[in-house]
Amino acid sequence: MGVPVAATVTFEDGTSRCVDDVAQALALADVARVELLYEYGPGLVPSQPLDQAGMWRYRDLLPLDPGPITYPLPVGGTPLVAPPGLRQASECKELWLKDETRGPTGSNKDRATALVLQHALNRGYETVSCASTGNVAVSLAVGAAAAGKRAVIFVPADVEETKLALMLFAGATVVKVREGYAAAFRLSREAAKAFKWCDRNTGVNPLTIEAKKTVAFEIWEQLGRTVPDAVVAPVGDGPTLCGLAKGFRELVACGVAERMPRLIGVQAEGCQPIKWAWEANASRVEPVQPSTIADGIAVGDPISGTLALRDVRQSGGGFVAVSDAELLRAMRVLATAAGVLAEPAGAAAYAGLLRALECGLLDRRERVVILVTGTLLKTPRFARSDGVPLEIDADLGALERALAGLGTS
Amino acid sequence: MGVPVAATVTFEDGTSRCVDDVAQALALADVARVELLYEYGPGLVPSQPLDQAGMWRYRDLLPLDPGPITYPLPVGGTPLVAPPGLRQASECKELWLKDETRGPTGSNKDRATALVLQHALNRGYETVSCASTGNVAVSLAVGAAAAGKRAVIFVPADVEETKLALMLFAGATVVKVREGYAAAFRLSREAAKAFKWCDRNTGVNPLTIEAKKTVAFEIWEQLGRTVPDAVVAPVGDGPTLCGLAKGFRELVACGVAERMPRLIGVQAEGCQPIKWAWEANASRVEPVQPSTIADGIAVGDPISGTLALRDVRQSGGGFVAVSDAELLRAMRVLATAAGVLAEPAGAAAYAGLLRALECGLLDRRERVVILVTGTLLKTPRFARSDGVPLEIDADLGALERALAGLGTS
Repeated sequence: MGVPVAATVTFEDGTSRCVDDVAQALALADVARVELLYEYGPGLVPSQPLDQAGMWRYRDLLPLDPGPITYPLPVGGTPLVAPPGLRQASECKELWLKDETRGPTGSNKDRATALVLQHALNRGYETVSCASTGNVAVSLAVGAAAAGKRAVIFVPADVEETKLALMLFAGATVVKVREGYAAAFRLSREAAKAFKWCDRNTGVNPLTIEAKKTVAFEIWEQLGRTVPDAVVAPVGDGPTLCGLAKGFRELVACGVAERMPRLIGVQAEGCQPIKWAWEANASRVEPVQPSTIADGIAVGDPISGTLALRDVRQSGGGFVAVSDAELLRAMRVLATAAGVLAEPAGAAAYAGLLRALECGLLDRRERVVILVTGTLLKTPRFARSDGVPLEIDADLGALERALAGLGTS
Repeated sequence: MGVPVAATVTFEDGTSRCVDDVAQALALADVARVELLYEYGPGLVPSQPLDQAGMWRYRDLLPLDPGPITYPLPVGGTPLVAPPGLRQASECKELWLKDETRGPTGSNKDRATALVLQHALNRGYETVSCASTGNVAVSLAVGAAAAGKRAVIFVPADVEETKLALMLFAGATVVKVREGYAAAFRLSREAAKAFKWCDRNTGVNPLTIEAKKTVAFEIWEQLGRTVPDAVVAPVGDGPTLCGLAKGFRELVACGVAERMPRLIGVQAEGCQPIKWAWEANASRVEPVQPSTIADGIAVGDPISGTLALRDVRQSGGGFVAVSDAELLRAMRVLATAAGVLAEPAGAAAYAGLLRALECGLLDRRERVVILVTGTLLKTPRFARSDGVPLEIDADLGALERALAGLGTS
């Protein structure tokens, strides 16, 4: 079990300090981002061959109380694949794809849910809460059901019906907040404090980044304990990218890796506050009004924006923004060339890869990993293509004529 | 690589014979079910700890040509979980759940797709075809895209729009056959022969059962190389259950297991031809007209019906049938007590478990594995519950009153 010994506390203006008292650092979670620190060394990194333990394999680098893991859903250990069709389509011979669509609810949020619920199990919380419009909510609803905990989920009143149905189906208590997402978020924070619930809100709870850093550990192990040249990841609130950065940073701190990969953050053109701050060389992220189909990254006032800025800068990487049309094209290429079904935000890394190649942030000869964060299956309305079925009578001749019409018989 | 040395050929009337010439056996696939046999011995069973190789871990018991596995999507190695909530709900203290919803397209069909496509890759087929109304079609469309092969999929004209959209999205050639599913199936067989396509039709292609048997190997390994008392599985066409049976039979033949588990096949009340044949002690299955929400097991004229009958009888198990209402209840319990999102056919094993306990086919003290075969996420319209969201203004007092109204604050 990992025991945090200190924490880095980063304020919204980008200033940060190291705090030796972890409890004191955690008390600042309302006004700053808290990142836990360990006594790093090679002994914290697993040395046995890859197994089926998923993210718990890295328990010595996770803030867990002593005792067995009792969270019942296996999470992590997702595939890192080298799809030949995607390498061909992108002309990147060393392209890898980390497929986070294989979690219990099909997104990388399942890692954070797992760690927060294990914490709730250890500490005796009966209720875990969050505000979310989508993947986090479904992930928490399902995870809490598995762990025998109550989930209270705050959503804006215009939440998508399919995702709402899934939360309710898994037995969550869902609270629609009439004033919208920002109000739902504030109320969820307030309620968690007032009622002593375990607060799973992304970015606010340091466990979410702790859980998401395990993706970096897995990439490194799956590449034979080597660091890729670059990792491309979607950026909404920030913790997915910040988790990756922290994971690689810790591998270096443990003395098992020599360097970080360059991190390329991908935002939607209709919601790119962090990219703008990066371009302006600013330390603070100015909120915007999001407008994109990619709900997973439609975050106008990102909670971990300053951290994401810092991490991308430190890594020598950069940000790109992609249009909704590019996201839809990327989804289609992932499906037809890699056999990976991704939602719009999930496909952002591939769209961003192409952009980053164009603008020189990446080179085609580099070893690059793209992070696919969420499945298309939860939002099937985006499975649109110009393909149409043939329609024939049950006759071989009719089939032959129809296929010939396609030019592909 | 496994090399089949003979085959069992079973005709529709239940008679069977062993054929030493595998090619000769395969030529009978139109009129009989063909099961491949190997020179069994403990050396064919992997002895190293469980790893991330998925179903290819069992390559010495799979009919693979020499050479590396080039199919790009990781398949198999799905979790076997012991959900405390489900054990409590069912009062089965030794209940296990094999979660096949974690495949690339969220169903156990992904195993058969993978083996057939690896075969197509090895033998240079450019096109792989099948007839299907649902999970097989989506699985083949996505798998073929990953493997760089063309998928031609024959569907009835009334195919569900969501699944059709997914097949097209993955780039498959979809052929709607006006006369319905049976005609689509016949035409797909005919076309595969005429155009020398690789035929992935379930039950007809012996590779489908070969792939599905790996589920049994995994269960046995995940239970510490022991055999459970019983396994409960949904039965439509039959190969899922027959694959399980063949897997456990081969473990016994290899000398690493002492006995088979009892197999409990679950059919829908509105489509139970195999259960009726079992009750009537018949050797032949009489076709019925299916009527159930569970499209995955809505097979009126099951292609491997006689095999499924034989396997369940030989195992000392039995069949149960469950209503659509029981399926919907089972889906809800899986979601709320186990955190597993299953489609109606995917939840059949849990509904069947409860039925089998009632009618004495199973005992609550036994170690039972239920096989959850497909995800709810592809058919979100079944995510219906009586749960309703609270709707409030962003105010802690309003929240408190709303929660108090639920009686769960």
